[in-house]
Amino acid sequence: MDRKIRIGILGYGNLGRGVELAVKQNKDMEIAAFFTRRDPESLKTLSPEVPVLSIDVAIDHKDEIDVLILCGGSAKDLPIQSPEFAQYFNIVDSFDTHANIPVHFENCDKSAKEGGKVAFISVGWDPGMFSLQRLLGECILPEGKDYTFWGKGVSQGHSDAIRRIDGVADAKQYTIPVDEALEAVRRGDNPTLTTRQKHIRECFVVVKEGADKAKIEEEIKTMPNYFADYDTIVNFISQEELDRDHSGIPHGGFVIRSGNTGEGGETKHVVEYSLKLGSNPEFTASVIVAYARAAYRMAKDGMKGAMTVFDVAPKYLSSKTNEELRKNLL
Amino acid sequence: MDRKIRIGILGYGNLGRGVELAVKQNKDMEIAAFFTRRDPESLKTLSPEVPVLSIDVAIDHKDEIDVLILCGGSAKDLPIQSPEFAQYFNIVDSFDTHANIPVHFENCDKSAKEGGKVAFISVGWDPGMFSLQRLLGECILPEGKDYTFWGKGVSQGHSDAIRRIDGVADAKQYTIPVDEALEAVRRGDNPTLTTRQKHIRECFVVVKEGADKAKIEEEIKTMPNYFADYDTIVNFISQEELDRDHSGIPHGGFVIRSGNTGEGGETKHVVEYSLKLGSNPEFTASVIVAYARAAYRMAKDGMKGAMTVFDVAPKYLSSKTNEELRKNLL
Repeated sequence: MDRKIRIGILGYGNLGRGVELAVKQNKDMEIAAFFTRRDPESLKTLSPEVPVLSIDVAIDHKDEIDVLILCGGSAKDLPIQSPEFAQYFNIVDSFDTHANIPVHFENCDKSAKEGGKVAFISVGWDPGMFSLQRLLGECILPEGKDYTFWGKGVSQGHSDAIRRIDGVADAKQYTIPVDEALEAVRRGDNPTLTTRQKHIRECFVVVKEGADKAKIEEEIKTMPNYFADYDTIVNFISQEELDRDHSGIPHGGFVIRSGNTGEGGETKHVVEYSLKLGSNPEFTASVIVAYARAAYRMAKDGMKGAMTVFDVAPKYLSSKTNEELRKNLL
Repeated sequence: MDRKIRIGILGYGNLGRGVELAVKQNKDMEIAAFFTRRDPESLKTLSPEVPVLSIDVAIDHKDEIDVLILCGGSAKDLPIQSPEFAQYFNIVDSFDTHANIPVHFENCDKSAKEGGKVAFISVGWDPGMFSLQRLLGECILPEGKDYTFWGKGVSQGHSDAIRRIDGVADAKQYTIPVDEALEAVRRGDNPTLTTRQKHIRECFVVVKEGADKAKIEEEIKTMPNYFADYDTIVNFISQEELDRDHSGIPHGGFVIRSGNTGEGGETKHVVEYSLKLGSNPEFTASVIVAYARAAYRMAKDGMKGAMTVFDVAPKYLSSKTNEELRKNLL
């Protein structure tokens, strides 16, 4: 067997920890180092044998790392870090600010090409696995429509938005697909759905002592962009209940392609891809690690530049040989 | 816009006709010729403007065709035709005799490399889309189990097997996944399932006058490989009923990957891909046509040899530019 693929993990929040756990599930990989902006001494990982180093010295370790996985946020960290490190490392990030993907791609592409590296951006489940299914759906059923539903799951951004309201101590928001809409799509009805018809938003809110619940509920339900366009349910609960019943980070969703073939489009087909995830960051991490393998192997094959899930032949994701894949999975 | 991709269709049964219809749904393609073993004069297609030629002269037309789609059977046609034509054309076939895929791949690979062509084999939904989902599932959730269920749909091989029984005039067999098994897999129970626990076989049988129904039913239910290992339901109906209620060729199925992440594998995830197909051959054809585009574009990029769904970067399947794909689908 070849030596193991050496993974560097930059950033140690929920996603970084998920990557650490995912690497341990892949026998052909090992964690070479953690990099952090915090005091390295203060960071306790699940891998005491692996050095924790300052982000400032990361580039000094470029020859000891095959793929650097960037686990920071899309708002402030990745737009800087990904292009910076793509010059020195094969990287994978999970950049998910949709509108900025073209710019982020260009920045990483330039840097990765200069360094002769592979830079995978926007890897995870959406963008990521869902994007791939949307692409496949539209290619194999060109006359059709696709639908993406999210949930049931926790939306971090919406939970944060509630927490910023005056009088709110803590909150968790679930995005829930509307059953009737899902069923209509599955039947191949090809409905046109408004935002309100696709998803419900359910909020669990802990208020500070003396806060005006009616006012908070009103403020949530009318919040532009976040809640105003949805049917929103607000539940007030205690901090104890929130901690006990809503501490997980589950998520999931559906990509459905419905299309027609035949002489007059008389034949209906429905393709459905769905995820039920016990933990959003752990699953995202697990996807990222498979693409880290692809980054390593594609770089070995001489490829370079920025890539997305659209650019990788699936065989690169697997540790098995092409012969094994054809024999056992085809 | 570039000129259209010129498709040749070899063989005009259900699949060939499906390919003809599918090409018409893709604006960047056109049918250049049909090739047949029958008398070309006798073949009436849906495209009167397209020449119908004898298979014997196919190679003379190699410069007028970008991709030749082979629509013959896996038992006798494709093992000969695919390697033969892969030397002169980029090809796509839907070879589905699982045990012989490695040999078929080698034969096509040798021939395609000699000719500098791309030869896609085993394209469709299983093998094909289902294979791709099995590969993705095992790469993104390495600690887990996958399950493939087929149906509800018509199995041609099993219908044929019933028709060969003495006293049977006509028959149609449906493969049906067992709901309880599907639900257990979806819950993430990771059950171990026997053949009998996964699928039911339901048969609709028309008998000849004076035939012994009890004997035929017994013969079906005890037929080794085909029915003996399953719970099989046999319904006797009239030819009229069979023609009226069972003339379609619907199919479908499920690929489910259930896996665990976390420190002690405590987090469950379930990934499900499902197809509900109004027509098995029309959907298979639609997938094949997307891979024909990939064959053409990969050959243009200098690639050659045999390929499967594991070897193609998804971007090659689409007629959109990479920029468009990232902007609109990622």
